[in-house]
Amino acid sequence: MTRVLIISASESDLIVMREAAKVLDEFGVEYELTISSAHRSPDRSVKLVKNFYGSDGKVIICGAGLAAHLAGVVAAHFPLPVIGVPLKNKGGLEGLEGLDALLSTMQMPSGIPVATVGIDNAKNAGILAVQILATSDKNLERKLVDYKKKLARIVEEKAKQLSSRT
Amino acid sequence: MTRVLIISASESDLIVMREAAKVLDEFGVEYELTISSAHRSPDRSVKLVKNFYGSDGKVIICGAGLAAHLAGVVAAHFPLPVIGVPLKNKGGLEGLEGLDALLSTMQMPSGIPVATVGIDNAKNAGILAVQILATSDKNLERKLVDYKKKLARIVEEKAKQLSSRT
Amino acid sequence: MTRVLIISASESDLIVMREAAKVLDEFGVEYELTISSAHRSPDRSVKLVKNFYGSDGKVIICGAGLAAHLAGVVAAHFPLPVIGVPLKNKGGLEGLEGLDALLSTMQMPSGIPVATVGIDNAKNAGILAVQILATSDKNLERKLVDYKKKLARIVEEKAKQLSSRT
Amino acid sequence: MTRVLIISASESDLIVMREAAKVLDEFGVEYELTISSAHRSPDRSVKLVKNFYGSDGKVIICGAGLAAHLAGVVAAHFPLPVIGVPLKNKGGLEGLEGLDALLSTMQMPSGIPVATVGIDNAKNAGILAVQILATSDKNLERKLVDYKKKLARIVEEKAKQLSSRT
Amino acid sequence: MTRVLIISASESDLIVMREAAKVLDEFGVEYELTISSAHRSPDRSVKLVKNFYGSDGKVIICGAGLAAHLAGVVAAHFPLPVIGVPLKNKGGLEGLEGLDALLSTMQMPSGIPVATVGIDNAKNAGILAVQILATSDKNLERKLVDYKKKLARIVEEKAKQLSSRT
Amino acid sequence: MTRVLIISASESDLIVMREAAKVLDEFGVEYELTISSAHRSPDRSVKLVKNFYGSDGKVIICGAGLAAHLAGVVAAHFPLPVIGVPLKNKGGLEGLEGLDALLSTMQMPSGIPVATVGIDNAKNAGILAVQILATSDKNLERKLVDYKKKLARIVEEKAKQLSSRT
Amino acid sequence: MTRVLIISASESDLIVMREAAKVLDEFGVEYELTISSAHRSPDRSVKLVKNFYGSDGKVIICGAGLAAHLAGVVAAHFPLPVIGVPLKNKGGLEGLEGLDALLSTMQMPSGIPVATVGIDNAKNAGILAVQILATSDKNLERKLVDYKKKLARIVEEKAKQLSSRT
Amino acid sequence: MTRVLIISASESDLIVMREAAKVLDEFGVEYELTISSAHRSPDRSVKLVKNFYGSDGKVIICGAGLAAHLAGVVAAHFPLPVIGVPLKNKGGLEGLEGLDALLSTMQMPSGIPVATVGIDNAKNAGILAVQILATSDKNLERKLVDYKKKLARIVEEKAKQLSSRT
Repeated sequence: MTRVLIISASESDLIVMREAAKVLDEFGVEYELTISSAHRSPDRSVKLVKNFYGSDGKVIICGAGLAAHLAGVVAAHFPLPVIGVPLKNKGGLEGLEGLDALLSTMQMPSGIPVATVGIDNAKNAGILAVQILATSDKNLERKLVDYKKKLARIVEEKAKQLSSRT
Repeated sequence: MTRVLIISASESDLIVMREAAKVLDEFGVEYELTISSAHRSPDRSVKLVKNFYGSDGKVIICGAGLAAHLAGVVAAHFPLPVIGVPLKNKGGLEGLEGLDALLSTMQMPSGIPVATVGIDNAKNAGILAVQILATSDKNLERKLVDYKKKLARIVEEKAKQLSSRT
Repeated sequence: MTRVLIISASESDLIVMREAAKVLDEFGVEYELTISSAHRSPDRSVKLVKNFYGSDGKVIICGAGLAAHLAGVVAAHFPLPVIGVPLKNKGGLEGLEGLDALLSTMQMPSGIPVATVGIDNAKNAGILAVQILATSDKNLERKLVDYKKKLARIVEEKAKQLSSRT
Repeated sequence: MTRVLIISASESDLIVMREAAKVLDEFGVEYELTISSAHRSPDRSVKLVKNFYGSDGKVIICGAGLAAHLAGVVAAHFPLPVIGVPLKNKGGLEGLEGLDALLSTMQMPSGIPVATVGIDNAKNAGILAVQILATSDKNLERKLVDYKKKLARIVEEKAKQLSSRT
Repeated sequence: MTRVLIISASESDLIVMREAAKVLDEFGVEYELTISSAHRSPDRSVKLVKNFYGSDGKVIICGAGLAAHLAGVVAAHFPLPVIGVPLKNKGGLEGLEGLDALLSTMQMPSGIPVATVGIDNAKNAGILAVQILATSDKNLERKLVDYKKKLARIVEEKAKQLSSRT
Repeated sequence: MTRVLIISASESDLIVMREAAKVLDEFGVEYELTISSAHRSPDRSVKLVKNFYGSDGKVIICGAGLAAHLAGVVAAHFPLPVIGVPLKNKGGLEGLEGLDALLSTMQMPSGIPVATVGIDNAKNAGILAVQILATSDKNLERKLVDYKKKLARIVEEKAKQLSSRT
Repeated sequence: MTRVLIISASESDLIVMREAAKVLDEFGVEYELTISSAHRSPDRSVKLVKNFYGSDGKVIICGAGLAAHLAGVVAAHFPLPVIGVPLKNKGGLEGLEGLDALLSTMQMPSGIPVATVGIDNAKNAGILAVQILATSDKNLERKLVDYKKKLARIVEEKAKQLSSRT
Repeated sequence: MTRVLIISASESDLIVMREAAKVLDEFGVEYELTISSAHRSPDRSVKLVKNFYGSDGKVIICGAGLAAHLAGVVAAHFPLPVIGVPLKNKGGLEGLEGLDALLSTMQMPSGIPVATVGIDNAKNAGILAVQILATSDKNLERKLVDYKKKLARIVEEKAKQLSSRT
């Protein structure tokens, strides 16, 4: 069963958005990765969301740049959590260091939240999706606890290497 | 025949968006003013646009604040000009001085433009709509030429009053 | 069983953070609302998180202003979803229109996401918490579907009133 | 008959502004592309506008960077639609990521709108010009409807390729 | 002989721009204060500048808000110093805390400088005009030296009062 | 007689500040170019200013980056015009795209103006210095009038080349 | 012996800067509070610093707004720690929400640091001064440890009151 | 005795943070340089601070990027001075030109200051640490006085070279 849908607003954004997919692979969570645009393929975007919800999907991750409306459009049609990744560069056009995408993703009106993560931080979107599923999946929860321990261990090892060098 | 549709993203934005309506009244252009939200009433927003296009509508003006997606959603479904007014305050929530709405309205991806006017400047949205219609309506064009002359005259009169006082 | 913990970084932030609590009340989700600071009461903050996790808590909502570290500190110790609400005003000091809190909450390093909602938008934090719980609670999911319908209906009614007045 | 005039504020901006010209070629709309500066050749700028208006021109597109006054100066003398493209780099000088050009182009006073598109997005300026002419040209309108369909089709094909690869 | 011309972009800006006039009165420098807009009365603006230059005027001070083009338009036609005052509020419309006016006034292309002073700081524009004239007027230069001494003396007196109170 | 003093805040800024010197060479204005820092050599900076004023110097141009205090420190000691050039990069440290230098140079308190030109635009600082001297030097004034004509001619020639190519 | 000198850049800033003084009173640290401006009374500012250093002073706190150069000027002449407080409003002029003062205070060149605290946060400047002195004063160190405990206790008490009310 | 602890939030930040270490070497101040993250190794971070304080450590320097919480977390547990260095790039993720790190480090709540230096300016963090220790160490104070003289001498020599070349 596919519990997570990842939508990249354009082909050029895939390189960033695959980081979310990698995290889900790592945690053994099934997902689908596709491309759809809020502005260029609006009907397809809505249909994707409705089909995913109809097949009991749980979380949608959207990545978009510039006036990043994708997560908002998806959130308008999906009653469960929508995660937005503001992207810095999109389709050859240069935006304002990602500030445009950040504000377009995050400043949603009351009633329709988008869970926003850091600029280009698709990896954190993947982890947040796992955390959401882990609220009802003890197996995933254990993996997250282990993941946190591993993060701490890596820091400790790097600190040890640094102190042994000096 | 209604050539212009004005959509306000929320009731609280009406106070600003009526300035666009006033300009259209002044120039004798028929319009419809309504409320619809990209996020809270997405289906209604799309239906409004399709009906307006079906009835030979020519220009849509959208006003929205925060992550102002309304103009973008409308532009995704409307092949003719869409004018966006970024709004400073929306529904009780305070944004970033309108910078969020400005970037969300203006930084559209290639292929789907939104003609953006200044923050809260619904009056200029109204004038731009008149200018667009005037490209094929000599009567409106004459009124615009007169309007420009009046603007200059007002400045001259104020300058005259100022110099006579000193 | 208390599934959501709301932490306000200071007493003066309670007025905003209660909006999250109201949403949880509306959806019939049990929660605890408390005060703790990442900087003034760091040990208490960590203990709160550990106790809540130990008692099978599922989601934590944090509201803080200025250099809003609370959500980050909580996320460092909690393996499940942490929602951050950047606040505009905090404890009498005036920040940069909430931009400081926004960036301090959202720009987290890889591995430790904070699900960030709009500035002062504690209501959306509450809804996001409900959405997260609804991924494994069909009753909540149904309520969310109804909530979305109600949002659309309110817009339609306001549009109807507007058109009947004109 | 030349219906669109494209003015680039400097030679170095031509590389971006030609994107607008390409769109007009694609849609079969006649245009003239020239160079003029609001500050270095102010008289020429005004004369260009007056001649173009005298010969029944309909839309002017202006591209400028830094304190981008070109569109404003043109709008002061032209009663029909003026489209502004804020440019990121200009003449060897580095501005503030295009934020300076964006605000100088968009924040016009009441009475004199400039239809602003995204930073460096001359392509969207071209499309907006076509949309404006299409309000009274059924042939162009049909082409715009086709163009929108093509944009959606491209997204669908890319999504198909992506899913077949995985 | 009138050596300084002060142009306020609108009547509502006069309250700020009169501060420049007050400084010139204080230093005994003759000036003319008038209203003209780059966008609403472009021909009048150019004519004002040409007449002033023809009558041997030396310095022009311009105050404007939003996309503050006035100083730039004036500088395009005047070979001697032009001083720009970016204004925070203009004509009822709210801009971005003066950041829009600041960038529109200051980020001029090479060849056409505008001597920009701080936001709303018309007083400093007046002093700068006096400093410019003082480069060839020993009487004004002496007054400026005295003015600087007075500024220092005021600080010293306030410091003395403060220390005597404590 | 040296009428203009150019101070570069560091050796690495010379590459930009020499553009001001080039303009003065072009207009035949004598100047001195030196290095001094508001923070690293404060006494030298003050002495430079006092000596230059003592030898009947007329205008000082300062270029500095980051917290660009140089122009302010100079203005505190010099009663005649001080021109500030905010610089984007300084001494290997990267600032905020020049926004830090811009605000540090321009937002001076009442009584002590700095005539600020665009970021890295030392050329315009040179021209502004010439304009200031030209208020009492008919020879320089004539050269400025010619310079303005040349700027316009260059634009016209480029436009001609462009139209002949197409 | 006076170990701390507090300099307010203007009389109107005293209301904020007294918060630093209050903290020093609370911790029993002797200080002197005075007014001096980097721009209006530059000689006095340098003399104050030299006298204070000559009398074995240890820490200087500076508060200034707009292009806040005071702390930088002081740091240029004082070899021991200088603390800068960026101020939001100064002398009736309105700046950019304190962003100008923040960058002018903090972005110092290499070699001349200013220890910058939050906007308007003179209280934290006072505490930082105490912390600096406490590195060689066990009595002050003990007071700081107690102060930290008190901060935590206040949070706990407020949390208790909150939970007893609900 | 180790009087200064330098904590780098990640291995990739070491390249910048070593500049602080170099300064301490130059002044003959003993320090320890290590890696720890507020979010990935929160327990280790707290333990490091407590051990350092227990062994009579005096100053902690923290360098972190993005939502730079490290200095804040350290300041919550350390009663003596904490110096924060906001970093521009962190761990492969691109932030907002360091503006995120700057605000997250500096905008601390009342009671818990972080002495913030410029973006990436670890060298100034090192000098500030020396200045703090010099408040009770006459030897270090003498070295700082010499250091200031050397900075001025270098400027003078570069100015001499420049003037001899021209």
